[in-house]
Amino acid sequence: MTSHSVTDDFDPKHVILGPNDGEPRIIHTMVRVKNIDRSLGFYVDGLGMTVLERLDIEAEEATAVFVGYGGGDAGAPLGLVCYRDGEGSYTHGSGYGHVAVGVADLPTTFARLEAAGAEIVMRPGVLVPGGASCAFVKDPDGYSVELLET
Amino acid sequence: MTSHSVTDDFDPKHVILGPNDGEPRIIHTMVRVKNIDRSLGFYVDGLGMTVLERLDIEAEEATAVFVGYGGGDAGAPLGLVCYRDGEGSYTHGSGYGHVAVGVADLPTTFARLEAAGAEIVMRPGVLVPGGASCAFVKDPDGYSVELLET
Repeated sequence: MTSHSVTDDFDPKHVILGPNDGEPRIIHTMVRVKNIDRSLGFYVDGLGMTVLERLDIEAEEATAVFVGYGGGDAGAPLGLVCYRDGEGSYTHGSGYGHVAVGVADLPTTFARLEAAGAEIVMRPGVLVPGGASCAFVKDPDGYSVELLET
Repeated sequence: MTSHSVTDDFDPKHVILGPNDGEPRIIHTMVRVKNIDRSLGFYVDGLGMTVLERLDIEAEEATAVFVGYGGGDAGAPLGLVCYRDGEGSYTHGSGYGHVAVGVADLPTTFARLEAAGAEIVMRPGVLVPGGASCAFVKDPDGYSVELLET
């Protein structure tokens, strides 16, 4: 059972802004979610991410939880923002695509997500000739997540 | 004038899959765009990113261009996917939020984007008390981009 509490392994400022070295970087991708616990079941229990930081945004009456794999070369965390009224009806346009997550063992990760009830979009296969094995699933809010075998 | 050609500073496999060390990571965020050159004007000329890789996806009749700052700790690249018919009318739902980009000099970057005609959502200011200075603009396809001063 993975804990959903905030890890204290990483400096919060580092999570939110990246290392303070003056270099430009892509810091995070933000999506709106309806139920943080449900999302953490997918991203933490399902995909093995860690809760890197949790922020209350009073002005927006929202909570932002940053999840990811931590460390400098683990990519940009995902920011999950949940409004406190919890009743927001978010829509999915056709413009935004997905976040891609690299995993060492695609079949195992895919099976774990499927067993947990994740909606399957594409079973493990190859999209680009000669490319890596990949699969697509949806997170609990319906956002597409690409799984790429590294 | 920044070139929009693909840099050869980074290993394409590294860009697409991350370093081959078996560690899980968040690899990229993908959004659909209508005109790659217009997008590169924003992300490369405006935000100083580099074209890390360009892929033709024959099965989907699309071109994917990965932009970012390169290097291990520069965050997850942004994948811009453009379909060849070029006429797709993408919609923006209310669920997807933005990609955040950390820059050392927010006023200068903001002024450059504004001068280039980017739609302004929020001028530089502070969202969270004690937080970093930030601003929001839209890219040429209407995706929100947060600028965070690092």
